[in-house]
Amino acid sequence: MDNFTYYNPVKLIFGKGKIASIGKEISRNEVNRVLMLYGGGSIKKNGVYEQTVNSLREAGIEFIEFGGVQPNPTLEHARAAIEMIRENNLEGILAVGGGSCIDEAKSIAAGYYLDDPWSAFEGREKIVKALPVFTILTISATGSEMNSFAVLTNEEERKKWSIGSPNLFPRVSIVDPEIQSSLPRRQTANGGADALSHVMEYYFLLDRQEITLQVDEAIMRSIISSIDKLMEDELNYEARANFAWASTIALNGLSCAGLPNGDWASHAIEHGISAMHPEIAHGEGLSIVFPAWIKYVSRKRPERFLRWAKNVWNCDSIDLAVLTMKEKFHDWGAPISLREKGITAGEIAAIAENTLLQGLPGVFQELKREDVTNILKLAL
Amino acid sequence: MDNFTYYNPVKLIFGKGKIASIGKEISRNEVNRVLMLYGGGSIKKNGVYEQTVNSLREAGIEFIEFGGVQPNPTLEHARAAIEMIRENNLEGILAVGGGSCIDEAKSIAAGYYLDDPWSAFEGREKIVKALPVFTILTISATGSEMNSFAVLTNEEERKKWSIGSPNLFPRVSIVDPEIQSSLPRRQTANGGADALSHVMEYYFLLDRQEITLQVDEAIMRSIISSIDKLMEDELNYEARANFAWASTIALNGLSCAGLPNGDWASHAIEHGISAMHPEIAHGEGLSIVFPAWIKYVSRKRPERFLRWAKNVWNCDSIDLAVLTMKEKFHDWGAPISLREKGITAGEIAAIAENTLLQGLPGVFQELKREDVTNILKLAL
Repeated sequence: MDNFTYYNPVKLIFGKGKIASIGKEISRNEVNRVLMLYGGGSIKKNGVYEQTVNSLREAGIEFIEFGGVQPNPTLEHARAAIEMIRENNLEGILAVGGGSCIDEAKSIAAGYYLDDPWSAFEGREKIVKALPVFTILTISATGSEMNSFAVLTNEEERKKWSIGSPNLFPRVSIVDPEIQSSLPRRQTANGGADALSHVMEYYFLLDRQEITLQVDEAIMRSIISSIDKLMEDELNYEARANFAWASTIALNGLSCAGLPNGDWASHAIEHGISAMHPEIAHGEGLSIVFPAWIKYVSRKRPERFLRWAKNVWNCDSIDLAVLTMKEKFHDWGAPISLREKGITAGEIAAIAENTLLQGLPGVFQELKREDVTNILKLAL
Repeated sequence: MDNFTYYNPVKLIFGKGKIASIGKEISRNEVNRVLMLYGGGSIKKNGVYEQTVNSLREAGIEFIEFGGVQPNPTLEHARAAIEMIRENNLEGILAVGGGSCIDEAKSIAAGYYLDDPWSAFEGREKIVKALPVFTILTISATGSEMNSFAVLTNEEERKKWSIGSPNLFPRVSIVDPEIQSSLPRRQTANGGADALSHVMEYYFLLDRQEITLQVDEAIMRSIISSIDKLMEDELNYEARANFAWASTIALNGLSCAGLPNGDWASHAIEHGISAMHPEIAHGEGLSIVFPAWIKYVSRKRPERFLRWAKNVWNCDSIDLAVLTMKEKFHDWGAPISLREKGITAGEIAAIAENTLLQGLPGVFQELKREDVTNILKLAL
């Protein structure tokens, strides 16, 4: 095991009917006025909006609503939110949505105290404080409800980049799996591919961390079996709840215990893709890229990939495991090729260019331009 | 999954050479004067004392030493510590030791603000605040470094009882597995039995929590394989580190995600034993009691125990798995019978009496006097 620090102060409240507690939780944190941030308005159809607003009112929390967060949340929208917070003297942010909404909330929380909210993403300003963030999760996938990372898209510069800081842990996150029953099948599938990818970004680097290898295999198997069950019956609460918790712990510090860093090359390539194509969801990009990355790099250290093939996919070879994973993603309804999303060979050079804007990605294998190009070709 | 809240704000710093950071960490928490609590003085032989004191001095933290914590820490010693804190206007406690030392530190931290430190254990006073606790762990076993529980023995009344409160989470805990290389073999074995027991107190109650079942099996397998390796080579750092992290997450909230409560009957019986025999270490009592508890209650719901037999012990029957576990404990050097610790049939009634002082233990199966007696007979 390498040295590491585990620190995660998020209070995560999990279960049916728990949204009703958000008002009191915000109040307990001595916050009285929040920006209520959400996306396209699906929360007004599934009862989440009403439950949230009722809880805020009962606890005497004042709030100003701000909808319109995009699936790939944008710098422009975050800037507008910061303006609203300033104009209305708000004290915190309540994100009601999926990872996009929570990531934008964190970006706003940090950006509020910076000269320019984008400067932290570029590494020009350090995040030394942030507004308190509260979340009600509506789509399990990114784990953002229990970590300190955020990804934001600068549309003007076509950059989809990330920040991380201990100041960005949400104070309280509420995960009610029941409200996810009405999710479109496609979003459940993307969530599965996303959560699985988070574990894989660490797993293949593990070696002397037997406990973390075993825990990561447990999380991966649980993700796969829960999504399988949800594909048969979207109302299966136990499967929904198991997936929700699995996706939270896939990226809350547990899956990387004993490692200094993850690999994150597949994420970097995915960010390259969706920076150019903001209509592609994060989980979609990952379900396309990850199998190709494994095919390309696994020769370097086959024993770890073989263990993954056996213990996660019950397969005797790496190739068969990659094929099984692709079939699984496809059966769930997640894309497994760039072509499915309308991207052709002609765009590969530009995507590789965008991917490399922040330097060469990858730890397991540092990827040069040629490598990124080859992986994208495998993903065509 | 049942509804649950996951909240664990402990900053856990893990790895070689990390003790040197304790002074700065205490300082960061705006604490300047601490009681340095430890046990029988082994820390003066293995370099931990020196590393700790140097770090405190470098960071300008004043400290008063108080040794003599017992393996089953006592109310009397905790009372004396509270007096010292009052007399010297100290602001926090630094526990340097194993679970006993950390548990006593938490009891002191809570007791400082109570009319009577024992009243919280009896449920007469509520813990609404506590002094800040910092820990340097020297024996991995109880998980106390990353949870909010404490067990203390009231010798006069022969009661070994527990408290729990969100106020009792340590602020910072340092786990340097390397310093555990010099532990007597017996303590490593007891630690293994203790950590395994913590997972089992939850595991057999799980049902609809597939993710937690899988994670718990991963933790149990890792505990067993790391202790096996340490029995062959006590200097195996990777095994030491893997076991250290496994024992921390065995009781930090993860192993019970989705459950309202654990069973804790085996712990209650163990507390009955060591309340009468304070010379018996907690892990020893558990390695004696747990196999007997499983033998006695597993008929009630064999499918869960059969899964445990297969996935943890690679055995086809419950009986065989219990036998394998007992053999394993015995090979490690942990006791598997009351007789080994000099307890005869004549004492069973008194131990059962003591066990039942706090009511009927057990959730999987509520144990009446007759059941406790039968389990103790099986453990003879």
